[in-house]
Amino acid sequence: MSVSTVSTVAADQSVCAPLPVLGRDVTVPLVTGGEVAYAALDYAASAPALQRVWDDVAAYAPYYGSVHRGAGYLSQLSTDLFENARRTVAEFLDCRDGDQVVFTRSTTDSLNLLAAALPAGCQVFVFETEHHASLLPWRDARVTYLDAPRSPRQAVETLERALADRAPYGPALVCVTGASNVTGELWPVRELAAAAHAHGARIVLDAAQLAPHHPVSVADLDVDWVAFSGHKLYAPFGTGVLAGRADWLREAEPYLAGGGASRKVTRRTDGGVDVEWHDSAARHEAGSPNVIGAYAVASACKALTEAGFDTLVAREQYLVAKVREGLADVPEVRFLSLFGDDAPRVGVLSFVVEGWNSSHFAAALSAEYGIGVRDGLFCAHPLVRTLLGSDPQTQGECGSPEAAPGEKSLNAIRVSFGAGTPDEHVERFVRAVRELVTDGAQWNYRTEDGRCVPDTSA
Amino acid sequence: MSVSTVSTVAADQSVCAPLPVLGRDVTVPLVTGGEVAYAALDYAASAPALQRVWDDVAAYAPYYGSVHRGAGYLSQLSTDLFENARRTVAEFLDCRDGDQVVFTRSTTDSLNLLAAALPAGCQVFVFETEHHASLLPWRDARVTYLDAPRSPRQAVETLERALADRAPYGPALVCVTGASNVTGELWPVRELAAAAHAHGARIVLDAAQLAPHHPVSVADLDVDWVAFSGHKLYAPFGTGVLAGRADWLREAEPYLAGGGASRKVTRRTDGGVDVEWHDSAARHEAGSPNVIGAYAVASACKALTEAGFDTLVAREQYLVAKVREGLADVPEVRFLSLFGDDAPRVGVLSFVVEGWNSSHFAAALSAEYGIGVRDGLFCAHPLVRTLLGSDPQTQGECGSPEAAPGEKSLNAIRVSFGAGTPDEHVERFVRAVRELVTDGAQWNYRTEDGRCVPDTSA
Repeated sequence: MSVSTVSTVAADQSVCAPLPVLGRDVTVPLVTGGEVAYAALDYAASAPALQRVWDDVAAYAPYYGSVHRGAGYLSQLSTDLFENARRTVAEFLDCRDGDQVVFTRSTTDSLNLLAAALPAGCQVFVFETEHHASLLPWRDARVTYLDAPRSPRQAVETLERALADRAPYGPALVCVTGASNVTGELWPVRELAAAAHAHGARIVLDAAQLAPHHPVSVADLDVDWVAFSGHKLYAPFGTGVLAGRADWLREAEPYLAGGGASRKVTRRTDGGVDVEWHDSAARHEAGSPNVIGAYAVASACKALTEAGFDTLVAREQYLVAKVREGLADVPEVRFLSLFGDDAPRVGVLSFVVEGWNSSHFAAALSAEYGIGVRDGLFCAHPLVRTLLGSDPQTQGECGSPEAAPGEKSLNAIRVSFGAGTPDEHVERFVRAVRELVTDGAQWNYRTEDGRCVPDTSA
Repeated sequence: MSVSTVSTVAADQSVCAPLPVLGRDVTVPLVTGGEVAYAALDYAASAPALQRVWDDVAAYAPYYGSVHRGAGYLSQLSTDLFENARRTVAEFLDCRDGDQVVFTRSTTDSLNLLAAALPAGCQVFVFETEHHASLLPWRDARVTYLDAPRSPRQAVETLERALADRAPYGPALVCVTGASNVTGELWPVRELAAAAHAHGARIVLDAAQLAPHHPVSVADLDVDWVAFSGHKLYAPFGTGVLAGRADWLREAEPYLAGGGASRKVTRRTDGGVDVEWHDSAARHEAGSPNVIGAYAVASACKALTEAGFDTLVAREQYLVAKVREGLADVPEVRFLSLFGDDAPRVGVLSFVVEGWNSSHFAAALSAEYGIGVRDGLFCAHPLVRTLLGSDPQTQGECGSPEAAPGEKSLNAIRVSFGAGTPDEHVERFVRAVRELVTDGAQWNYRTEDGRCVPDTSA
């Protein structure tokens, strides 16, 4: 495949334009001279804010007031806005009647909240291929880590086998990703939910990488909870979501203890203190809610719904095809995959380049092409090591590679994009990868403070 | 004292102008007809954003990128911005060498984090007069609740007596407010810190109400930790701070488990998972940091420092005097105080009005004067009940009063202001209180969904 093929893909008129995002006009300096429009291709870490989200936040900000707490007009407006945001998120996720939407700070926070709300004796089942946010929060539970499956079907079979082995009583929870933050591959959530329920377990969906790219229906997937992050959903204002069944949440100790979660606090005659906690979502939202963050998430939910996921998915798949087809004839580039190269995926692809240290390659993409990708193990160390086949003892700093330029690559490069990505960014990425593989970097690089940076000392 | 005295105070030329804040031009409808500029007098719950903070956030937003995670230019810029924000906050708080600054979501979150980091067997000492965020997080600890003191000196004596009674070994922590969120009164932090240290205990300062109004020096006060909230410090973007000694934080289990906090995660041959956690502040900041929120807090710290706390304190005291003097000859108005009417305080005053239900009074201030105050128990139930002398069994919804208009007041009204408050807001408040006391409300009110609202059915 040649560059002309890429142009053919680019000429496809059937896809929509990208949604306007902040930063679309930002230029960055190149080490080789001049400036270029920044190509933000690290959406899987943090996506830029939708212009619509920013406009909504900017319009609201002068009306900001204390939520749930004040008698004034702006306090009541802000309280209504906050509670309406909860309803908007519930609609976006197609929640069931009675489901709760709790505003957290991120998917990590949401899953830590759920972990703190597990009933006593709860068993947790999680694939070793999960992001650390899904892998690690279950500290008080008995956790069964499941081996990496090599197909969606094997994932279901692995889970079924593990659940069949457990004692057929007592609470159990399965935690599974909707789309891998490393490979972008879609997981068989509905089938895994059915397997969980068939064995008396519940299931939480880590939708951090799914919700920005695909519609998520709690009711259709029949998952018990879903978690996602605003900063990956074009609303980077410090808010995430945990939504789903109310019972475990209502019965749990409050996640945070403080005002807002407490209905009534009284000093006892023996000197102690009695607390009545709220039963609603407020139980786990102590402290003044981040109303701007919640409003931003709701705004993003509305914007994506109005743009239409059919349209957004079509555009994203067109961009995925551009990357795959544009690099198909570059044998040095190996994409990482659990389920095979043709498995359905969102706009998240990780790869290694033969003969290149991944940090070096990513640094050259940034310094010489103005392209922002990520290198490392992507907070999913066991998965990336499995995919790389590398020795798990050799490294592992999350997001800051330790290997020096020129050494054997022990981490990977991830390119990710979404609703705001113009064709040109992906086209430039494909061209840059081809040039670097063919011609090498134009500059020298060195490691400084854990980062691979251009050596400008010469 | 008459209204003319108020005008005399207003004519004082020695105070600075208020700092520009968002919302200063917002008007709200009055139930009696027309619109009026909104007087935000609920700073103690949530302060408006400084214009400077908003401008900084708006300028940065297009450059937003993934923190600690990406190889691209904007990721590195965002990472630098985030870590610089940490340093700015450390300077603002006059931290010691080696102190850590952890970004949280709020004071509540900060104190819950510290509670989760207590060494085994730690005893906690906290006055019953604290905000619930300081009163309630110590769930795994042995907590001694101290009776409400009636003077700063009594506070120190009460703490000393309690500490002298404890076994003279083992870890202990004192948690104390810098300025009460109910009375605004300043607490003798330096003396309490000395008492704590003399008895081998540590101390954390709840500076939620202090930091926006007064300089806070960790080094001078000799406190071990300090916590505050961005949303009370003119930076309402979902970020708070816990700053102070690193040792307990470094030795504790991570507050949140996930990416960013984990340095290395490996699957063991027995099927389990091993984790190496970071030792730095990142240990407790799992998940993508809220860089916009942290940057906003740093921007506010800089803006307050540049404006100068001497100037800000002088202006605020001038406004406090306006309120106190403007209502001194209204015997129906009783201000709440632990330490006496003349005790030094920040711009936070709570009061009850004889013959009025506080919710009714607050609703009338909003609907007929466009003034936003708060009514309730202010997430400090034991303190407010002590000050009101009311039966602790009768009510207590935090921020949403249950008593109907006309019933005996079982909660209070709080007026609070700060760096962005113009004279006119406080003058209007004084005039409104006087008119309501003298003439009564012009409208009828009823309770709807827990709120006291104008009855517009007539």
